[in-house]
Amino acid sequence: MPAYATNMRLKFPIVALVLEVITIILFAVFAVYDDGKGHGHDQHSNKTHSEPMDLYPMFQDVHVMIFIGFGFLMTFLKRYSFSSVGINLLLAAFGLQWGLLMQGIWHLDDGKIKVSIFKIINADFSTATVLISFGAVLGKTSPVQLLIMTILEISIFSVNEHLVANVLKANDVGASMIIHAFGAYFGLAVARVLYRPGLKNGHENDGSVYHSDMFAMIGTVFLWMFWPSFNSAIADQGYVQLTAVINTYLSLAACVLSAYALSSLVEHKGKLDMVHIQNATLAGGVAVGTCADMNVEPFGAMLIGFVAGIISTLGFKYLTPILASSLGIQDTCGVHNLHGMPGILGGLAGIVAVAMGKKEGGDAAMQAAALASSLGFALVGGLLTGLIMKLPIWGQPPDQNCYDDSIYWEVPAEEEEHEESLAHADHSKNKAEA
Amino acid sequence: MPAYATNMRLKFPIVALVLEVITIILFAVFAVYDDGKGHGHDQHSNKTHSEPMDLYPMFQDVHVMIFIGFGFLMTFLKRYSFSSVGINLLLAAFGLQWGLLMQGIWHLDDGKIKVSIFKIINADFSTATVLISFGAVLGKTSPVQLLIMTILEISIFSVNEHLVANVLKANDVGASMIIHAFGAYFGLAVARVLYRPGLKNGHENDGSVYHSDMFAMIGTVFLWMFWPSFNSAIADQGYVQLTAVINTYLSLAACVLSAYALSSLVEHKGKLDMVHIQNATLAGGVAVGTCADMNVEPFGAMLIGFVAGIISTLGFKYLTPILASSLGIQDTCGVHNLHGMPGILGGLAGIVAVAMGKKEGGDAAMQAAALASSLGFALVGGLLTGLIMKLPIWGQPPDQNCYDDSIYWEVPAEEEEHEESLAHADHSKNKAEA
Amino acid sequence: MPAYATNMRLKFPIVALVLEVITIILFAVFAVYDDGKGHGHDQHSNKTHSEPMDLYPMFQDVHVMIFIGFGFLMTFLKRYSFSSVGINLLLAAFGLQWGLLMQGIWHLDDGKIKVSIFKIINADFSTATVLISFGAVLGKTSPVQLLIMTILEISIFSVNEHLVANVLKANDVGASMIIHAFGAYFGLAVARVLYRPGLKNGHENDGSVYHSDMFAMIGTVFLWMFWPSFNSAIADQGYVQLTAVINTYLSLAACVLSAYALSSLVEHKGKLDMVHIQNATLAGGVAVGTCADMNVEPFGAMLIGFVAGIISTLGFKYLTPILASSLGIQDTCGVHNLHGMPGILGGLAGIVAVAMGKKEGGDAAMQAAALASSLGFALVGGLLTGLIMKLPIWGQPPDQNCYDDSIYWEVPAEEEEHEESLAHADHSKNKAEA
Repeated sequence: MPAYATNMRLKFPIVALVLEVITIILFAVFAVYDDGKGHGHDQHSNKTHSEPMDLYPMFQDVHVMIFIGFGFLMTFLKRYSFSSVGINLLLAAFGLQWGLLMQGIWHLDDGKIKVSIFKIINADFSTATVLISFGAVLGKTSPVQLLIMTILEISIFSVNEHLVANVLKANDVGASMIIHAFGAYFGLAVARVLYRPGLKNGHENDGSVYHSDMFAMIGTVFLWMFWPSFNSAIADQGYVQLTAVINTYLSLAACVLSAYALSSLVEHKGKLDMVHIQNATLAGGVAVGTCADMNVEPFGAMLIGFVAGIISTLGFKYLTPILASSLGIQDTCGVHNLHGMPGILGGLAGIVAVAMGKKEGGDAAMQAAALASSLGFALVGGLLTGLIMKLPIWGQPPDQNCYDDSIYWEVPAEEEEHEESLAHADHSKNKAEA
Repeated sequence: MPAYATNMRLKFPIVALVLEVITIILFAVFAVYDDGKGHGHDQHSNKTHSEPMDLYPMFQDVHVMIFIGFGFLMTFLKRYSFSSVGINLLLAAFGLQWGLLMQGIWHLDDGKIKVSIFKIINADFSTATVLISFGAVLGKTSPVQLLIMTILEISIFSVNEHLVANVLKANDVGASMIIHAFGAYFGLAVARVLYRPGLKNGHENDGSVYHSDMFAMIGTVFLWMFWPSFNSAIADQGYVQLTAVINTYLSLAACVLSAYALSSLVEHKGKLDMVHIQNATLAGGVAVGTCADMNVEPFGAMLIGFVAGIISTLGFKYLTPILASSLGIQDTCGVHNLHGMPGILGGLAGIVAVAMGKKEGGDAAMQAAALASSLGFALVGGLLTGLIMKLPIWGQPPDQNCYDDSIYWEVPAEEEEHEESLAHADHSKNKAEA
Repeated sequence: MPAYATNMRLKFPIVALVLEVITIILFAVFAVYDDGKGHGHDQHSNKTHSEPMDLYPMFQDVHVMIFIGFGFLMTFLKRYSFSSVGINLLLAAFGLQWGLLMQGIWHLDDGKIKVSIFKIINADFSTATVLISFGAVLGKTSPVQLLIMTILEISIFSVNEHLVANVLKANDVGASMIIHAFGAYFGLAVARVLYRPGLKNGHENDGSVYHSDMFAMIGTVFLWMFWPSFNSAIADQGYVQLTAVINTYLSLAACVLSAYALSSLVEHKGKLDMVHIQNATLAGGVAVGTCADMNVEPFGAMLIGFVAGIISTLGFKYLTPILASSLGIQDTCGVHNLHGMPGILGGLAGIVAVAMGKKEGGDAAMQAAALASSLGFALVGGLLTGLIMKLPIWGQPPDQNCYDDSIYWEVPAEEEEHEESLAHADHSKNKAEA
């Protein structure tokens, strides 16, 4: 694979360095610290937070979801864990800078972006869309392709987010529509464009081993625990924020029961499947997002989570194989089941809840428009992005090197460990001193 | 093992779905959001917290202890890590819903349970009792048996907690007695009823491998770090809460030194044993629980932790084998050493501290009654629960399938990875696409 | 190795128990709870925090960095993960107690150390110096040697910290100089004294395997996420603290891009190297430390991080081998590249920023003096400490047992797992019941 290696050596460092230098220049022009003296014309400016650090613990919970949660959730593949957690870090670190700029230009204050905790929470949020889409194409794309996707997806996300929040004035506090459904369908559209017929019979590395499934559970559990923070971080302070926490806490708890039950019901001999446990248990957090700060009552939140766990598990079992075989959408992590369908469910629940008067000042038609807008931007944006990512210049890996860290990473010689432990051989090379 | 597989297929999903549906109905009847307008007749209502989200960071620390801490602490077994972290998630997710109901019915407000951060912290606490007991029977029980245990144990816990806190008005801010001692002796009583003579010479899977011990250390360290939050979360705000944090921080630090020292002292050639490090280092958090908010002075807290580390390590080394061989109590995780004896130590320290006037308004006799009540409810409740769990209908695994995930989980083919890496064979099945 | 084993059995438990007993006695004499009524003559007393628990969430983030961050970062070695996370816990648990005393004696209040959240944050900080130095000598020192190092290093650190903060009145809010540069050069000086010619051609265990690199990434990512808390925890409350958070957040993000780019640029065929990703991505947090609460503007912070990522990666690639071969400094974890050079860069950036008037009341000469003082105390203190650690009585491991847990730990029989999985043999011993 000399072509790819060369590609990586020449292109990746140049792209990364140039992007970062451009970003620093843009920050020099636009970004200043928030000094609390802004005009706050932004609907989302969350004026009730008077102290600059009030939201910091919430921010750190979201931060953990982005870097540990998403990063480790994708480490389930047996030979692709370095890439999952490592490229996740790369994309999120670049994405949060890009997101600060792209979201900030809609809310300039005297020509400046005033960086606050509220803004860095939203920057982290914007990276979540990319990390969701990353899940759809995991193992089949190069780091350069993914940096391109990060730029485009966050830019498009920011337009849709502005439209939904400021023009339509729709409610989506936990971002079922503008992050989860958007990120999933964007990623699925990219995956469609990058369809690989050569993988239609699977790939030997597209599966887990025991310990890679355990690393993935670290991601799952941190996402599960901190999801109440994700859904409430930018809610209005006080009892509204409390409502968002409680709805999310209960929806996720109910979702676990239905996901486990369905996993056992649909699997061979009633056994549980780690893919379902790692993913479908989280669908309740996605689905309750739009309604999180609405007065849907605790049992309403639980019903949403209960249904999400069922839909998500059934999707993994029955829909993902059909998408791959019939529609040419090879969704590595099953983001359609974790973020796509539950995100739409969340959008629909939001329409119903607003129509039932569960959110003061809400408008069901605007909620529906927000869902349509999010899906539309995702699909069109994803298709265009996929076409750009398909340009041969970005160095997409060949089929046989998919789901394999060794194309982009120096991987320690694992075989030698086995030989060694069996035969007590002594051939291991010294990596750290090299 | 077709009988067990069928059992799982038919019974587990039905039990899980029915329980969740019943729970949602009960929430529809009883649960509303806290609106800050309650009567607050509850001793534990912590009136000093005026803002609804004040306790949220504390809640998240406790949440991490429940789901990452307990979940990963039990992953040390070589072939039972999926079950440890996965069943922990299932039981805690159900348990927190059940705990909200069971604890809430003692404190109804206009016939409703008003869900607040304070109440969800207590709901998480109630699940801790189940997770401690789970440690005693780990590897030897079916998911259905464990769901039964969750319902019964949390219900009984709620009665004892109400008695201790509201009738006896005893102090147990860090729950040495009502959670740790209760959970441990409840679990040991269950383990006694479920005694398996077939395992008296051990089981080939009842041990760790290198990486499973590392996963367990994730649980240990998160429990260790966040224990000050556990012991102070429901303390009175301000300097009392600070006292609970400092006492726990220092007790745990002192406990580490004595646990390491004793581990080295009692082991072969002075080596450290991971079982002790994973568990006995935490005994200081358990033992200082009752006294955490009392004026025992920093050195007093350190003495408690120091003694707890010694007792716990000696228990793992000398007492656990005797309990198994002489009393028929097969305590998989050694919860007697981490939660049982240190919990009693905590209760006794609380009696002494209150007798010495270290807690305003405390009554040593009531402290002693609380300890006796907790042990009594645990032993009687555990025996009854064990008898119910022993009914053949719940599908207890046979001896040869104990400590083995593959009876309840689809486990990826680990052998093939080894063959593959040695012989570069290519037989691996594609799991993700299946 | 009976000599070492005996050594461990006799000396380690006695040293650990005696140290802890002495520490408890010192706490009995000196330590009381903070009651908010102190005189607060300390420059660092952070009077703006009126509520005793205000800093608690920040404290917990720092706590996670110390115990999970440092602990897991060092688990990358294939056979030394128990020691990395386990000895890290031991040293930090002892160090935080010792640090409370050593830092406290400079700020006595009516002859007492009043323990507050602010003081336990600083106690955690003091342990960071030891954990950094531990990285330089990882795999080549006994637990007793390391306890000796902990006592001496924290004592010397406390003198330098007092000099820098209270005499020179220099700024170092994120401790680039007094923790990172100090800890690194202290450790390098110790490593120089303990130079092992027998390891100059490397050691078969001085390298990683796939899963040990994954465990190390847990440490990396938690350090990366919570570094804004490390750099802002003791900053003045309000907008100054916000500035410290934002500068660190952005510096780290920019650092990731340059570290990835340089890793690819310098490695074989443009591949990424896990050593760089695990470490150099964090250099931005170190380097922005001194300037974190200064008005360097967001782009200034990003520039610092960008340069730090480059310097750190180049150091790992080119400088570490030279230090080992030419200067006899065998730096196991490359702390010179993560903490040493970026720490000096941070100190220099602080001098420049203060000279440019970015910090009200700052004095560039005092900043330079603080840097010189930190390096001087580190090098002299490290050399003296190394000489004491070299005394044969402390039981340093022989060359062939370096980087190997089995000299100090009961390690489960990993080979048997492999045999078993290949041949379904059944020889495994029962560890848990033993």
